[in-house]
Amino acid sequence: MPDKSNISIILSHPQLGENIGAVARAMKNFSISDLRIISPRDGWPNKSAESASVGAIDLINNAKIFTNLEDAIADLNILFATSAQSRDMNKHYISTKEISNFINSSINSKIGFLFGRESSGLTNEEIKFASKIITINTNPEFTSLNIAHAVCIICYEMFNSRLKYNLNENFQDLASLDDMNLFLEDIFYKLESKNFFKVSEKKDIMKRNITNIFTRIDNLSKSEYKTLRGILKSLSQH
Amino acid sequence: MPDKSNISIILSHPQLGENIGAVARAMKNFSISDLRIISPRDGWPNKSAESASVGAIDLINNAKIFTNLEDAIADLNILFATSAQSRDMNKHYISTKEISNFINSSINSKIGFLFGRESSGLTNEEIKFASKIITINTNPEFTSLNIAHAVCIICYEMFNSRLKYNLNENFQDLASLDDMNLFLEDIFYKLESKNFFKVSEKKDIMKRNITNIFTRIDNLSKSEYKTLRGILKSLSQH
Repeated sequence: MPDKSNISIILSHPQLGENIGAVARAMKNFSISDLRIISPRDGWPNKSAESASVGAIDLINNAKIFTNLEDAIADLNILFATSAQSRDMNKHYISTKEISNFINSSINSKIGFLFGRESSGLTNEEIKFASKIITINTNPEFTSLNIAHAVCIICYEMFNSRLKYNLNENFQDLASLDDMNLFLEDIFYKLESKNFFKVSEKKDIMKRNITNIFTRIDNLSKSEYKTLRGILKSLSQH
Repeated sequence: MPDKSNISIILSHPQLGENIGAVARAMKNFSISDLRIISPRDGWPNKSAESASVGAIDLINNAKIFTNLEDAIADLNILFATSAQSRDMNKHYISTKEISNFINSSINSKIGFLFGRESSGLTNEEIKFASKIITINTNPEFTSLNIAHAVCIICYEMFNSRLKYNLNENFQDLASLDDMNLFLEDIFYKLESKNFFKVSEKKDIMKRNITNIFTRIDNLSKSEYKTLRGILKSLSQH
C-alpha cells in the first residue's frame, strides 16, 4: 500500500519529544508520512523525538516546522480538529468510526488532522479553522488520551478507509484553506471599512464566529470559491 | 459505560516499564481494567510503569503478576494472540476490523488478548494456547507496532463493539482454558502410556500441534467439554 500523501498530521505546540517520535512511528505503521509541527516547545531538531521514532526517523527528518497554523494548513482542502471535550462552537462533531463515510465523499481532497498540546489540547482560535471536530469515543471518566495514541487511532482508521476506497490523487477541484483565509481577510477588511465591528472588545469573537461559519462549508470547489469572492466584491462596490 | 470486566489484557515478558504504564493508560481510556503480566523483565512493582500510567495508576496497582501463561489464562474462555507476522501454524487469522463480528457470537465469554515481548513478540509455544490470531493491518514495509499502540487499537475496537452489543456477564456455559489444559494433560498422559510419541525429539512439536487442534474449537461449552473428557476416558479403557 503506497503512501497516497493526501493526508497530513499536524501537531500544534507539542511538548515532549518522546511523543513526537511515537507519533511518527504510528503514522508510518499506517502509511502516512506528512508530519507538520507548529512551534515544538523544545525546539527542532529534537533528540528525544529522533530516538523515540525507532524505524520512522525518515518522518522526523522530513517533518515540516511552522510558526503558525495558517501557514501549516495553507495547501490543505479539509481540516479536522481532534478534541476530547465538547466546545461551545457551532461545529459538526463526528466520531472516528464515521471518518470513512466522510472520507468517501472527500476523496479529491488534501486532508489534515490537527492535534493540540499534551497539557491543554487545541484552543478555540485553532479549532475555528477546522470544518469538523473528530472525537474518539472513550471511557467518560478517563477521556485524556496520550497524543501518540490518538494519532495512532486516527491513522489506523484512515489506513483501513483507504484500503476500502483507494483514494485517488486529483486535488485540483477544491478550494484550499489558504484560499479560504484570503477570503476571510478580504471580508474582515471590507467589514472594518464599513464600521461593522462597532464594539472593539467584541471584534475578535465576531471574527471567530464568522470564520466558523465559512470553514464549515463542506468540499468548497475552486469555482464556488470564485463565486464567493465575486459576491463579496460586488456587494462592497459603491 | 461501566467496566464489564470480561476482557483481559495479558502482557507476556514485557521489557520496558514505560510501555506497561502506557498500556494501562490506553486500557483505562477504553474501560478495560484487568491487566495481567507474565514475568516482567525488570521485576514488579516498577517505578517507570507507575509514572507512565498517568491517571491509570489503579490498573498498575491492581495488575496481576504471573510466572507462566497457563496460570495467567486459566479462568478465561477465549484467548486471542496478537501477532504482526504470519505463523506456520494452522490458526485462524482475523483482523481487528473483524473482532466485533466475532465478539457478537461470544458474548458469554471471558476474553483475553495476549501480547508478546517488545523485541520478539510471542513464541509459538505461547500462541498455541490461542483460539485465533489477531492482526492489525499495517504498512507492509513497517509492521512493527509499539506494544501500547497495539493494545490501544484492540481496546478501542473492543470499546466500540461493546457500545454496539452491550455484553452481559453470564460466563457460566463455556469451558475455561484451564479445563482445556487439564484435558490436554490427560490426553498427553494417555498417549505417553500408549507409546504414541515414538521419536522423543519430535514429542514437543507433536504436543504443540495437538494443542493447536483443540484450542481452535470455538465456544466449547462445559457440557461439550465433559463429552470430550468422556470420549478420552472411554477410548483409553482396557
